[in-house]
Amino acid sequence: MSPPTPVPLDKAYLLLNHGPVTLVSSAAGGRRNVMAASWAMPLDFAPPKVAVVIDKNTLTRELVEASGEFVVNIPSRALAQTVLAAGSSSGRDVDKFAALGIETAAAAEVGAPLLSGCLGWLECRVITEPENQRRYDLFIAEVVAASADPAVFSDGRWHFADDLQRTIHYRAGGHFFATGESFEA
Amino acid sequence: MSPPTPVPLDKAYLLLNHGPVTLVSSAAGGRRNVMAASWAMPLDFAPPKVAVVIDKNTLTRELVEASGEFVVNIPSRALAQTVLAAGSSSGRDVDKFAALGIETAAAAEVGAPLLSGCLGWLECRVITEPENQRRYDLFIAEVVAASADPAVFSDGRWHFADDLQRTIHYRAGGHFFATGESFEA
Repeated sequence: MSPPTPVPLDKAYLLLNHGPVTLVSSAAGGRRNVMAASWAMPLDFAPPKVAVVIDKNTLTRELVEASGEFVVNIPSRALAQTVLAAGSSSGRDVDKFAALGIETAAAAEVGAPLLSGCLGWLECRVITEPENQRRYDLFIAEVVAASADPAVFSDGRWHFADDLQRTIHYRAGGHFFATGESFEA
Repeated sequence: MSPPTPVPLDKAYLLLNHGPVTLVSSAAGGRRNVMAASWAMPLDFAPPKVAVVIDKNTLTRELVEASGEFVVNIPSRALAQTVLAAGSSSGRDVDKFAALGIETAAAAEVGAPLLSGCLGWLECRVITEPENQRRYDLFIAEVVAASADPAVFSDGRWHFADDLQRTIHYRAGGHFFATGESFEA
């Protein structure tokens, strides 16, 4: 893995535009957590915003509400088992970083960590919308920094080569799709 | 193409969970339209809900606000040029159905049409949230009926065979990813 390289904010939506599964990392008050999230999408180009569903019953929800921050990490196929495991246990019961062997690096703008081995990172600051959060578990956030592994994303473009270093899309029941062939219409 | 087969509402989210590009169809007052939307995601399981971004300046926005309904159509790779063309012109300037040769069928529960040749259809009724619509162009809707082409989706599962009859994911600038290999973590 190459070290994260900054992605200009006006290109940040391109990391998420094709609908990959994500890992949401968070930290507050000396605690941190990671959860799997398929329900994450871009919401605006500039300033870039995202919408992410974070269930009421999760530790992530508690940490995101306390800190007002999170990171949307975009995992590779090599991390599919980690995505599944992160989505199948609660940070209230287990330290997922230790249990799953997830290494981290410091983010540029937020307290939540960047998950090593991921392919892209969107550092997000929550735009508080209490009714969306309460009624729909829906969080809207501004992307305040973005970065990517330059081996697979540069100049605003994904360029996958290795099959294990591609983004993935979650189906259900432990099944995923790999991001497939690129083509021009 | 096989005729749309009903999908049980509790399985409807599976049509959209992997993040494919969509076509949003709408109708009101004798007018109808279709737009491309990458920014669409499930928001809840049961009753199923979706979140979709619909720009203020579009005819679709006008028709969706007038009718309170739309359909999220999930196109195949065979329709990639149609997706691109639908996203590059305005229904105020051209009848996209005629110009792009899009055929339609009647939906079960809403006035907006189902687009023929698509692989899945989510019929949606807007849950009015004026502030989300105004601030973020964000529409929340309940899925009131769903259907799919049984050749590629049945028993709550996508099973693609033909490369042109797969879902697709939008990148930018006319470039897409095909939905790739399925795998179990």
